[in-house]
Amino acid sequence: MAGTDISKQAMMRMPYYLRYLRDAEASGASSVSSTAIGEALRLNSVQVRKDLAAVCSSKGKPGSGFNVRELISGIEELLGYNSRVDAVLVGAGSLGTALLSYKGFSEYGMNIVAAFDSSASVCGRVIGGREVLDASSLEDFCRNNSVHIGIITVPADVAQDVCSELIRGGVKAIWNFAPVKLKVPDGILIQNENLAASLAVLSRHLKNMSNAANG
Amino acid sequence: MAGTDISKQAMMRMPYYLRYLRDAEASGASSVSSTAIGEALRLNSVQVRKDLAAVCSSKGKPGSGFNVRELISGIEELLGYNSRVDAVLVGAGSLGTALLSYKGFSEYGMNIVAAFDSSASVCGRVIGGREVLDASSLEDFCRNNSVHIGIITVPADVAQDVCSELIRGGVKAIWNFAPVKLKVPDGILIQNENLAASLAVLSRHLKNMSNAANG
Repeated sequence: MAGTDISKQAMMRMPYYLRYLRDAEASGASSVSSTAIGEALRLNSVQVRKDLAAVCSSKGKPGSGFNVRELISGIEELLGYNSRVDAVLVGAGSLGTALLSYKGFSEYGMNIVAAFDSSASVCGRVIGGREVLDASSLEDFCRNNSVHIGIITVPADVAQDVCSELIRGGVKAIWNFAPVKLKVPDGILIQNENLAASLAVLSRHLKNMSNAANG
Repeated sequence: MAGTDISKQAMMRMPYYLRYLRDAEASGASSVSSTAIGEALRLNSVQVRKDLAAVCSSKGKPGSGFNVRELISGIEELLGYNSRVDAVLVGAGSLGTALLSYKGFSEYGMNIVAAFDSSASVCGRVIGGREVLDASSLEDFCRNNSVHIGIITVPADVAQDVCSELIRGGVKAIWNFAPVKLKVPDGILIQNENLAASLAVLSRHLKNMSNAANG
């Protein structure tokens, strides 16, 4: 099956290819070369060719290039943008509220069907069009609604408990925004998103530059 | 100077160490071993020792371990949590609004001082306590206010223009949420945050699992 053996790194490049290809199609191009894509995205053209061959049955013929429409369809299918995946979000604090209010996820095929929080003062509130439910019903909700993605935006010290509960409820993939490493059984995917770590890298760069200027 | 030669990967582990150490201090521990930290965070203890030695002058003596308070201070200083860095955010759409509404950044020492948008219908609106300013004043604003971090949440096709403008205004580090590779001069740091790519990895995992179950 196309795409089955695609690496995580290649998967993470796919949204960049898709963006480029949609732009190319909008400006009237029907075929593109891996060299042109590589130059635009600053990637090695051999890598581009290998990545795209995995989603496009016609491969990229030297001289003629890849068919733009076929590539777009292949990548959209690979990324699941045409299907819909249901997710729950746990932790309706500041970050959770921001993610619930973000309207961009549906574009990527992800639908946050419910939010959960353990605080009585938050439960019952409506954020981004979804009522916040009591965290005690999390496991049952996931099982009864066949939810397979859990988004964790709770404080670090309770993230592992939430994670275990999601998995007991049948969740197969966790998007973790809590700054803690989670332990999961084999077969469960954890995708960590660490905004604090990114900020650390940014502010470190500024400090190094200012040290260099002053020293 | 302590920490000057710390790798980006080590920097990204620091928030995890800090979280662990704050928890340890809260529960009364005054010293910790690199082995204990490594087990809790599922990292190699040799790597932990090396990372922490860079922020702690007393090193970790075999048997006695690292001093918790000293490590916390060292990491907080390294990460800039005690100082304040000003940032601007460009693109007050759905994601920009979510980030402006998020109250957690100040905890990490980052202060978003202003937001910008090119759309007349958004300019003048107040989001997360900040008025959205006209994007035409972006470069001058950064220069006049010595802003060194720019957060890009505009659509991909205008992200490069915004990036160049930020750099002309004196910005040294870019936090890029647009799904596009940006070109910058030497010395400017780009930290990419690609939520679409993370979602791609998550939904791919689900598809592979369902293929395995059906096949």
